[in-house]
Amino acid sequence: MRQKKSFLCVGIDPELSKLPQGIPQTIEGLRHFLQEIIPPTLSFAVATKINLAFFESLGSNGWKLLETVLSWIPPHILTIADAKRGDIGNTSRKYAEAFFQELPFDGITVNPYMGADSVKPFLDFPNKWTFLLGLTSNIGAEDFQLQRLASGQFLYESVIETAQTWGNQLPGELGFVVGATRPEYLQRVRKITPQSFLLVPGIGAQGGDLPSVLTNGLIDNDFGLLINASRSILYASSDHTFVEKAVKVAQSLQTEMAAFC
Amino acid sequence: MRQKKSFLCVGIDPELSKLPQGIPQTIEGLRHFLQEIIPPTLSFAVATKINLAFFESLGSNGWKLLETVLSWIPPHILTIADAKRGDIGNTSRKYAEAFFQELPFDGITVNPYMGADSVKPFLDFPNKWTFLLGLTSNIGAEDFQLQRLASGQFLYESVIETAQTWGNQLPGELGFVVGATRPEYLQRVRKITPQSFLLVPGIGAQGGDLPSVLTNGLIDNDFGLLINASRSILYASSDHTFVEKAVKVAQSLQTEMAAFC
Repeated sequence: MRQKKSFLCVGIDPELSKLPQGIPQTIEGLRHFLQEIIPPTLSFAVATKINLAFFESLGSNGWKLLETVLSWIPPHILTIADAKRGDIGNTSRKYAEAFFQELPFDGITVNPYMGADSVKPFLDFPNKWTFLLGLTSNIGAEDFQLQRLASGQFLYESVIETAQTWGNQLPGELGFVVGATRPEYLQRVRKITPQSFLLVPGIGAQGGDLPSVLTNGLIDNDFGLLINASRSILYASSDHTFVEKAVKVAQSLQTEMAAFC
Repeated sequence: MRQKKSFLCVGIDPELSKLPQGIPQTIEGLRHFLQEIIPPTLSFAVATKINLAFFESLGSNGWKLLETVLSWIPPHILTIADAKRGDIGNTSRKYAEAFFQELPFDGITVNPYMGADSVKPFLDFPNKWTFLLGLTSNIGAEDFQLQRLASGQFLYESVIETAQTWGNQLPGELGFVVGATRPEYLQRVRKITPQSFLLVPGIGAQGGDLPSVLTNGLIDNDFGLLINASRSILYASSDHTFVEKAVKVAQSLQTEMAAFC
């Protein structure tokens, strides 16, 4: 992050129907698109967040493509499986094996609803990162995450506070997802977890504002943020200029970030 | 359910390390095991719940095996992807496509933490079933699901009550997961949702008690329950008698259920 002056995470949410003109809407077309667009945009990034749903919707061939895509990511880029998994203990252990052993991801997003034993199997893996959903970027975050508990806390605050008591993970191995669309809550999050890394989606297509995220979420001298942009990079252009335009968006986000480094 | 006098759901959580003696601990061995054990145990069941984690932990070959396993399920058996998915709207739509279109599942388990727009894309599919996590069977359910909200409700109660206001689904297309390990809460669930189908895991290996689940959860003349048993059936024997012993467990659960039909 220091070298690149970047906390950019490039999100990979590939849809056949959104491929640029001239690229066939097939798995082969998708493979070509991703091979062209991923390496140059990652030059400006420190991480990539790969959205599992878009690969699963293509069946076992999609899962195979995912394995291939992972092999293209340079080793110094943190790879996050945006999978939002979570289940009873013995099942979560299998999910952790799926993403940390069978697939060589460095990190994963996990849903906290099922509590400690559903999350700990991910934390048990050394040198792997778990990003627990805290306050997400979508409108539905209001339904439960922003409900007040009897204690006076919001549910998402209780999630972030409680999860920090789970297990022996090193600082850094447990992070939280906090949406860029709600920067006013980032200060509250930072009070509960002054040091954790936050994975912040919602910049770009979802309307989140980068400077206010940086102002409210950055840790002095220690970054503490990974800012994700997906569709605004991947679909910056719908014609043959897609690589060039994607790189331009990634670069301009990195330039904005550099001012805060 | 009336014909079979059963509300049994057979859970498929296949682990290489638990295959009976004499079966090689490989994907081929697993395929053989599942092909032997699934059809006869389903004679006593009305549904099967397939746990995605155990297939994902085997990579793209596991996903391929999942496609094959689904082709063995007789058409009158309801197939549920125990996937516990949920994400922002456009991603949840992709998950729904993955499990309702690309794979021919009839139903899926969904995590409610991200709220309405993360769940509605599943409800939008006609003739498909969504089972939202309510109160799960694991100890971690106490961390958040059993937290009191400022309103006085438990979080899981708010989830079940709120979700019923989402969308135009037919009665039956939205159900809830409520663990068999907490039968005392089933009465509270039935007050909030007198008619929904409940998918009840936790019988058998997790220690749930079948008669008290039936007493507290059944709807008069309309069942309203799918009771899942996984490991107690799949791993009833660790030697060559595994099919025979699995069938015996499934049959004895069905016999217990028949007394309530």
